[in-house]
Amino acid sequence: MNTVTETAFKHAAQIPQTMKAWVLDDPDQLSFVEKPVPQPGVAEVLVRIDAIAVCATDLEIIHRGPPALIQGGLPFNKNFTPGHEYMGTVVKLGPGVDEFRLGDRVAVEVHAGCGRCERCREGMYTSCLNYGLNYGDVNKGHRANGFTTDGGFAQYAVNNVNTLAHVPDDMSDEEATLIVTAGTAMYGLDVTAGLVAGQSVVVMGPGPIGLLGVAVAKALGAGEVILTGTRDNRLEIGRQLGADHVVNVRNEDAVAKVKEYTQGGAHYVLECSGAPNAVNDAAAMLRRGGRICLAAFPAEPVPIDVAALVRNNIYLFGIRGEGRSATHRAASLMAQKRFNAKIIHTHTFPLEEVPTALRYARERIDDAIKVVVKMNRQAA
Amino acid sequence: MNTVTETAFKHAAQIPQTMKAWVLDDPDQLSFVEKPVPQPGVAEVLVRIDAIAVCATDLEIIHRGPPALIQGGLPFNKNFTPGHEYMGTVVKLGPGVDEFRLGDRVAVEVHAGCGRCERCREGMYTSCLNYGLNYGDVNKGHRANGFTTDGGFAQYAVNNVNTLAHVPDDMSDEEATLIVTAGTAMYGLDVTAGLVAGQSVVVMGPGPIGLLGVAVAKALGAGEVILTGTRDNRLEIGRQLGADHVVNVRNEDAVAKVKEYTQGGAHYVLECSGAPNAVNDAAAMLRRGGRICLAAFPAEPVPIDVAALVRNNIYLFGIRGEGRSATHRAASLMAQKRFNAKIIHTHTFPLEEVPTALRYARERIDDAIKVVVKMNRQAA
Amino acid sequence: MNTVTETAFKHAAQIPQTMKAWVLDDPDQLSFVEKPVPQPGVAEVLVRIDAIAVCATDLEIIHRGPPALIQGGLPFNKNFTPGHEYMGTVVKLGPGVDEFRLGDRVAVEVHAGCGRCERCREGMYTSCLNYGLNYGDVNKGHRANGFTTDGGFAQYAVNNVNTLAHVPDDMSDEEATLIVTAGTAMYGLDVTAGLVAGQSVVVMGPGPIGLLGVAVAKALGAGEVILTGTRDNRLEIGRQLGADHVVNVRNEDAVAKVKEYTQGGAHYVLECSGAPNAVNDAAAMLRRGGRICLAAFPAEPVPIDVAALVRNNIYLFGIRGEGRSATHRAASLMAQKRFNAKIIHTHTFPLEEVPTALRYARERIDDAIKVVVKMNRQAA
Amino acid sequence: MNTVTETAFKHAAQIPQTMKAWVLDDPDQLSFVEKPVPQPGVAEVLVRIDAIAVCATDLEIIHRGPPALIQGGLPFNKNFTPGHEYMGTVVKLGPGVDEFRLGDRVAVEVHAGCGRCERCREGMYTSCLNYGLNYGDVNKGHRANGFTTDGGFAQYAVNNVNTLAHVPDDMSDEEATLIVTAGTAMYGLDVTAGLVAGQSVVVMGPGPIGLLGVAVAKALGAGEVILTGTRDNRLEIGRQLGADHVVNVRNEDAVAKVKEYTQGGAHYVLECSGAPNAVNDAAAMLRRGGRICLAAFPAEPVPIDVAALVRNNIYLFGIRGEGRSATHRAASLMAQKRFNAKIIHTHTFPLEEVPTALRYARERIDDAIKVVVKMNRQAA
Repeated sequence: MNTVTETAFKHAAQIPQTMKAWVLDDPDQLSFVEKPVPQPGVAEVLVRIDAIAVCATDLEIIHRGPPALIQGGLPFNKNFTPGHEYMGTVVKLGPGVDEFRLGDRVAVEVHAGCGRCERCREGMYTSCLNYGLNYGDVNKGHRANGFTTDGGFAQYAVNNVNTLAHVPDDMSDEEATLIVTAGTAMYGLDVTAGLVAGQSVVVMGPGPIGLLGVAVAKALGAGEVILTGTRDNRLEIGRQLGADHVVNVRNEDAVAKVKEYTQGGAHYVLECSGAPNAVNDAAAMLRRGGRICLAAFPAEPVPIDVAALVRNNIYLFGIRGEGRSATHRAASLMAQKRFNAKIIHTHTFPLEEVPTALRYARERIDDAIKVVVKMNRQAA
Repeated sequence: MNTVTETAFKHAAQIPQTMKAWVLDDPDQLSFVEKPVPQPGVAEVLVRIDAIAVCATDLEIIHRGPPALIQGGLPFNKNFTPGHEYMGTVVKLGPGVDEFRLGDRVAVEVHAGCGRCERCREGMYTSCLNYGLNYGDVNKGHRANGFTTDGGFAQYAVNNVNTLAHVPDDMSDEEATLIVTAGTAMYGLDVTAGLVAGQSVVVMGPGPIGLLGVAVAKALGAGEVILTGTRDNRLEIGRQLGADHVVNVRNEDAVAKVKEYTQGGAHYVLECSGAPNAVNDAAAMLRRGGRICLAAFPAEPVPIDVAALVRNNIYLFGIRGEGRSATHRAASLMAQKRFNAKIIHTHTFPLEEVPTALRYARERIDDAIKVVVKMNRQAA
Repeated sequence: MNTVTETAFKHAAQIPQTMKAWVLDDPDQLSFVEKPVPQPGVAEVLVRIDAIAVCATDLEIIHRGPPALIQGGLPFNKNFTPGHEYMGTVVKLGPGVDEFRLGDRVAVEVHAGCGRCERCREGMYTSCLNYGLNYGDVNKGHRANGFTTDGGFAQYAVNNVNTLAHVPDDMSDEEATLIVTAGTAMYGLDVTAGLVAGQSVVVMGPGPIGLLGVAVAKALGAGEVILTGTRDNRLEIGRQLGADHVVNVRNEDAVAKVKEYTQGGAHYVLECSGAPNAVNDAAAMLRRGGRICLAAFPAEPVPIDVAALVRNNIYLFGIRGEGRSATHRAASLMAQKRFNAKIIHTHTFPLEEVPTALRYARERIDDAIKVVVKMNRQAA
Repeated sequence: MNTVTETAFKHAAQIPQTMKAWVLDDPDQLSFVEKPVPQPGVAEVLVRIDAIAVCATDLEIIHRGPPALIQGGLPFNKNFTPGHEYMGTVVKLGPGVDEFRLGDRVAVEVHAGCGRCERCREGMYTSCLNYGLNYGDVNKGHRANGFTTDGGFAQYAVNNVNTLAHVPDDMSDEEATLIVTAGTAMYGLDVTAGLVAGQSVVVMGPGPIGLLGVAVAKALGAGEVILTGTRDNRLEIGRQLGADHVVNVRNEDAVAKVKEYTQGGAHYVLECSGAPNAVNDAAAMLRRGGRICLAAFPAEPVPIDVAALVRNNIYLFGIRGEGRSATHRAASLMAQKRFNAKIIHTHTFPLEEVPTALRYARERIDDAIKVVVKMNRQAA
């Protein structure tokens, strides 16, 4: 007890008034500024950020500004801090919080629903109808870290207790930044399939979500997991994460190979490629009554053969974020060491070098998959 | 008992060796021939057809031949009888059948699954993996009346007991042919929504399925039902079937009107139009987390904004036929007189005039909606 | 607009500092006191209570004190106002509330979840893990009107926006108090059955929930609804609300009758009787694979034949309150006039006579079913 | 091809006219007789039995005769062969079977539904409404191996293709007999929980289903699995199969320990003990909104606190057999070597010694858990 109190005191004592943070500037520009450290409110904690991974959506936000659905203002403002795949240490508790203790290591998920709209009431908090309504006159309390509320390319961030999952002592900061990525894959599989044990799953696109989609599907007992993509080195990593088969679509007919590996068609497709023909290919790979999870999308509308969906009784599930507490499930699987997420972590930079980290991620320099920004505790 | 036996005897005695039936000929041609009356096998009965409605898919089969998924042969054969929206009287029982009695009036659904594939085992019998495998060397027992097995433009048809729903005494033959259409709408709402009570449903396309979709949604307690289409007279029929609002998309912005009527977006869209932009419009009409049932489709691939589906957490459900015993549910609602399906029945012809009936349906002559072929019992 | 503003002004102006309210006293005693009018917080409104119905659980709370699960204090305190089946008028909005306007008529449901526990996050807010934690040092924000937070035997009550459903202009105050009762029946049917259309439902126990269970099941399209009970007059009311069959268990073998009416066994049982043998009887009435909703319970443990549940693949669903926004669905059905709930409202008393109202309800004086306390606006 | 044909020929050639089989005699007696080898019909194959495990329900059938639900005759007949946990080799195909090839090694599940009742149509084939109707005048085609149709304490048995799962080459006959047991646990977890990944599961009762319930739950990614029982050696085996915690209820308060290990209550209980207070204990162990799977039951009705189920929103799922293709999922997990089922196999006897095998199982001689009867191929 005494130790906890002392630690708590230590944590509280260490919180400065201001912090270093990257904020949006002109498109594709960030500025490194000094900002006030935010204060946690009801049901919130202050997290000292220890590490944060770069996600493709970060690059988009930095390029175009935060999501357009936001009603009532704010972005593309120049005080906004992006970044959502972070982990850290709880250093201050908002009023009445007892779900966490000072010093707890936590990973975060993106969305905290408003808790008062129809979707939040039914548990679909990533589809909160008050998305973005978290500032100014009509604050309904929704938060999406790094999308609509300040994110993690900074020394501190406020988080709703709903968005936090415990990180075990023996998991590194870097690995813990990958929990939210695994959480997205978990969410997609939960919504789309429920129970994949003994069934076949095709993962299209060996990006971070796709690769961890392979790992999560196998951890849940999937029978055959087939990964499709264009780069052999990525496919090889998928194999290490548990893919039973990999298909390089440059060399092979993915639809034909999937049908061969699955005796006529897969049960599920987790689409993480955003390729223009992905939905049509996915439909063709499935057996009748199969299901597609859409976790990625092309920038423009693409031609889709709706007739194939109807005739074959195919369901599609567009998913946003990582709902249904999927991050907690993913954190549990990773705590149980069910797969080695670390192999998708390829590069590390300090907070000062966020622009370099972003560049590595954007341009896939040196085969970068997950680029992590690790805080230098001296610098903090 | 005595009466039943006598009736049974009467029915059996009346069954001739051969019957009149329409069969496929050259594309868009039918021939009126004399065929053997088929015999019911295990779990089957022989139905004397009393009435049959024309469906748009009949026209397609007559134009192009039966569905291409069929493996192992047969159509476009010239002995095949199309037609699936029929009702009639049980006149002979296959071995061991006690689910029905001679003289029972029955409406039919299209699909009888093989009962031995993965999908049938999980109750998805309209997605039977042995679709079309019901002839010749590898007969797995699947039946789809009028699609892969002989249908109802004839005096008699064999039916699996799974495909039959009782028709009450006070329902006319003509009305009973509409049960399967209401069943498709019911299936779509069941899969997509589960419980629509108190929620908002947009129905796109006032064809027969769309119009009965309006009726079924209201019968299930939907809060607001909004029907969109291009013809005012059809929309007016939708209103009579319970639509709270109708939108003529030629005059009004359907997306804007739906958002207005539903305080920001509907819960569900039942897409029955097959219009090229239907999926995009549907997605735009929904609140976040909304769902689309695809009961129709355009002939060609169409551009779809996948990003809108993902960002708004939208699910799409391609449905085939009328699974989950939806026809039984629809029959029950109609027996309870929850809606007046009869108003979509506009024209009637005798069996001899099937080509005329088809022409009325195809060309929508005289504002035809549902064209019914009614057997002349004398002729039979 | 002007009128709204004026009305708003009028409402605000009329709110007094204190109000009349009944509070717990010794067991089975209430005191009529003057209390401060409560103030709405974030996501809350102040409701001027216009009418409130008496529920059996009110009698229990007045007899034994509020639920024991409450951690951290309070009941059996003598400042607590019971009562949860109320409706009224929104007279003050908490900060940021725009879901309602001053002057809106509203009915209420009981539970507002904390929004931050695992169950609330998955939409099961009536199973909130922070049930009762809404006072003192560890206030997690859960509310259960009249159970753990002040209820409606008073002139005003605070309500979370989540707990409110709009009441249409043409529905009387008395009828609107019944929305929450219909909501409980709706919740039970939603959880247990999903879609009852065309299927058979047995309702055991013709109390208010059972009677409205009959009405809701029929409104959702149930094929056969069978009501069992011991009092013919109650069963007759059930018949008026749509029961296809009623069984007086004093005169008839309910299990045998249900099997007869349902060709071998019902699909669902909604158990609202709390009778000692109810679960066993329900299991015996069901066809294999049937389901039981437990909306009532005996005071003591009762012998249950678990083997019958396992052998027949029966599922049981204990339900608490009226989750899944069932109250909103029920309000919609009643606004659509799908059933006439008013016939279960038998007696009316003014606020001053709450003890008499409770006595009528407890002792079923004069065949009382629903006893409503209607505010005298002059008195307010 | 040639080899296959030769093998096929070899298999066919080897099938004798008669076989050795154990059949029911007086209660608790079996006779070893010579019976005709049965012939596979449509959708059926003949399996040469290679090994069969003893299940507690076998002992019950031998003691009391087959299940009483059977309508239309047969048991307690003296020609009936019990036994359902068997595996073997496909040696003959019924007409039209191409799902399996001669020489395939297969494990079996118990139930083949009739395919024509309401429950089969919705995928609930273990709740087939024509249970037991598989003989004589009204044969609806249902089969429950060893319960209502001849089982596996014999050299050959007929099986519907629906009841067969492939056994990989590197799995021993003995291990393959355990697939169906793992399948029951899988079915229970599927029905009750869907996705247990990251959540807590209590397994009550370390019998074979309970022990493999532990293994399956962990294989599906459960966070904490807690096994309760009365025998330390059994609990130790549970630990080897993945239990995070074990509780000997003779020494410890299981409810208190579960609450401690799960921070207030478990998510799910898989009840496999049949203990008289199991349901009450399970309810007390769960957090609100938790769920119980009933996979076992006491012989007599037991007192249950229904109020606790209702107040805490608890659901109970009685499960019969191993539906939803759970056996296929279990076979896949075992093929993937996700757990070592073999450690519950303790004893082996030849076909001639079935009575001894049953005695070991009944009396738990020498700590017997799973007793397997292994065919002596020479003897065959």
